[in-house]
Amino acid sequence: MALIVQKFGGTSVGSVERIRNVARRVAKWKAAGHDLVVVPSAMAGETNRLLALARELQPQPDPRELDVVAATGEQVTSGLLAMALIELGVKARSYTGWQVKVLTDSAFTKARIISIDEKALKKDLADGCVVVVTGFQGVDAKGNLTTLGRGGSDTSAVALAAALKADECHIFTDVDGIYTTDPRLVPEARRLRTVTFEEMLEMAGAGSRVLQIRSVEFAGKYRVPTRVLSSLTDPNLPVAEEADSGTLVTFEEDPHMAMEKAVISGVAFNRDEAKIQVHDVPDRPGVAYAILGPIADANIDVDVIVQNVGHDGMTDLSFTVSRSDYPKAMKILKGQVQPHVKCREVSGDEKIAKVSIIGMGMRSHAGIAAQMFRTLAEEGINIEMISTSEIKITVVIHEKYAEAAVRVLHKAFELDQA
Amino acid sequence: MALIVQKFGGTSVGSVERIRNVARRVAKWKAAGHDLVVVPSAMAGETNRLLALARELQPQPDPRELDVVAATGEQVTSGLLAMALIELGVKARSYTGWQVKVLTDSAFTKARIISIDEKALKKDLADGCVVVVTGFQGVDAKGNLTTLGRGGSDTSAVALAAALKADECHIFTDVDGIYTTDPRLVPEARRLRTVTFEEMLEMAGAGSRVLQIRSVEFAGKYRVPTRVLSSLTDPNLPVAEEADSGTLVTFEEDPHMAMEKAVISGVAFNRDEAKIQVHDVPDRPGVAYAILGPIADANIDVDVIVQNVGHDGMTDLSFTVSRSDYPKAMKILKGQVQPHVKCREVSGDEKIAKVSIIGMGMRSHAGIAAQMFRTLAEEGINIEMISTSEIKITVVIHEKYAEAAVRVLHKAFELDQA
Repeated sequence: MALIVQKFGGTSVGSVERIRNVARRVAKWKAAGHDLVVVPSAMAGETNRLLALARELQPQPDPRELDVVAATGEQVTSGLLAMALIELGVKARSYTGWQVKVLTDSAFTKARIISIDEKALKKDLADGCVVVVTGFQGVDAKGNLTTLGRGGSDTSAVALAAALKADECHIFTDVDGIYTTDPRLVPEARRLRTVTFEEMLEMAGAGSRVLQIRSVEFAGKYRVPTRVLSSLTDPNLPVAEEADSGTLVTFEEDPHMAMEKAVISGVAFNRDEAKIQVHDVPDRPGVAYAILGPIADANIDVDVIVQNVGHDGMTDLSFTVSRSDYPKAMKILKGQVQPHVKCREVSGDEKIAKVSIIGMGMRSHAGIAAQMFRTLAEEGINIEMISTSEIKITVVIHEKYAEAAVRVLHKAFELDQA
Repeated sequence: MALIVQKFGGTSVGSVERIRNVARRVAKWKAAGHDLVVVPSAMAGETNRLLALARELQPQPDPRELDVVAATGEQVTSGLLAMALIELGVKARSYTGWQVKVLTDSAFTKARIISIDEKALKKDLADGCVVVVTGFQGVDAKGNLTTLGRGGSDTSAVALAAALKADECHIFTDVDGIYTTDPRLVPEARRLRTVTFEEMLEMAGAGSRVLQIRSVEFAGKYRVPTRVLSSLTDPNLPVAEEADSGTLVTFEEDPHMAMEKAVISGVAFNRDEAKIQVHDVPDRPGVAYAILGPIADANIDVDVIVQNVGHDGMTDLSFTVSRSDYPKAMKILKGQVQPHVKCREVSGDEKIAKVSIIGMGMRSHAGIAAQMFRTLAEEGINIEMISTSEIKITVVIHEKYAEAAVRVLHKAFELDQA
């Protein structure tokens, strides 16, 4: 008998029939003798509907009031799911974020969880109750409603699992696990039975988008064993089979396991970014801040940042931003930054793709980077930027080569072989 | 400068454009120097949509979970209305029921307000803020979400006005006040500039349905001057004009005013009830309870109850129930009650109408009942049941005479004359 937190995404609770299926799945786990805490997202489309209403009234909605509106979507599915469970004869009870309470900071629309009071939930679990907790939301110290931002229900689920010291956190989604790369692009892509937190973190950041990145950080920090699995299978699939499905995100604690592991776990890619280059800036302290400070002030997230060794007291700084932020970023750089830092030129390119190889095994294997660059060169793909971390190598290439790059790297690192 | 609570119904906030109009109206009152607390209902149709979802999952929804779901409709409009006000440059802030907090009992789906903590609201008002409060909902002593039942936003508004000792409570709705009778039936119907709480209470009970009956009781108990006025007028209507529009529900405190008042204030009617007669029941203590107890246990509300003086140790008991409860009530009476109380027969009739005349002046004028019965007799309308209170006389007649009865009574009591 285990304590399991199960999170269901918007598609999984997108209709009355699907909510009923979620209830059947949860009831099955309960009947197998487990304690269950369930975190449903808002019904698919509901959060967008609420945001659209808000934006019609206020193009830049007041963040506090936006959270008041946006938090309702998850509250509805929590109540509905509790009803569906009760209808199946399962004792169930829903909690909103403030009822739990999930205490957050006051950063409306992107609040961070500070603490979770698990006492009431534990009492209900001891009473044999399935506890349904409204994901995505919390309450700040002053009693204001807050939301955790897009995908925040994943974070709610992992944080609840940490607070309750759950045995496992199940993230039910519309894919059946983490793959070596996107199977739509590479039919030979394989599902990984396990993946480390570090790899998962790099994959999520690199655009694999199965789990929200903050939830992965949370899982890593509190060492919550987290399983990504499909909500599209038959809800009556035997528990023993379901318990072994999907991909388990683990810690690299067992050195023996790490040795056995493949060098590379996956190839990730992202075509939603744009590249910006600031040419010939004076190579002196503070210049990177002078360029990127105004970008950060405008709430534009910067991803890959590359600065080469300078020459003649000058250097080039390149970075990528989300493609939707590209025009705004260029305007700031040309209008505000260029006159100030006295660089020669600001140029950019929207037609880029970011491709990364990720793997814990990379740490102990030399020549991985060389193999990646050779593979791309043999395919005639020019590399525009390179950035590396402990377990990831990222290249920025022309958008038109994205698919080819993913395919050849997937094959070169033998990811298609079990 | 006054403190005013303004409540807007579901139709008044039924679209983004209408919410914007509500914001304009509130901003206008604020600009005129008043302090405003605004209580919006859920957008028209939203509560029904949520209830339908709930009933699909659970034909008899769990009341606690139903409140979790149903309470979201008002939360959405509160946030949206606050945004619309902020967009107009008006300082505004929304509160849910639990944030205020509106403490209720634990009778889910029909909770009653116990107390309202007005401290935070008063502070915001002192800061020049328009306070938007989510109507219809509260929180019980254990922190469960509760709702006040259909039309509960009226009650929220009046209760807030009482707690804040507001100068006036405005109930904005889709009619421009209380009429002597339904203008769709009698074109000569006049809008009343004032009506007493007692009359209003009887009118609401008799089916006039402009204000929820519990809100009227609340207003009476705490002596909250409450004005019913139209939200369909131009939102830019001058404040001085709007302040004098609609119908003000008052107290009969000024005997001079009472003397000047018309004997009868209005004619109310209701065609949604059915009549049930229990014939020849033993005329002994406890028999009324033996008949009506099982009806109450089945949550069926009974309206007019008439029992005549008995004869030969036997009596007849008649009463009306909502037409939708009629089949259920008949089943209980024939299956459960008749074998037990040993009455001769249980009969019923769905084709009835209830017509009432209401007026504070009735108390000090003899012969009102006689005049009512004569008027109906002259029209050839047979009276099936009669029930009276201090300020109301109700008759039950055949459904087909309902309109004729309302018209002739409206004319006989000179309600068409100012």
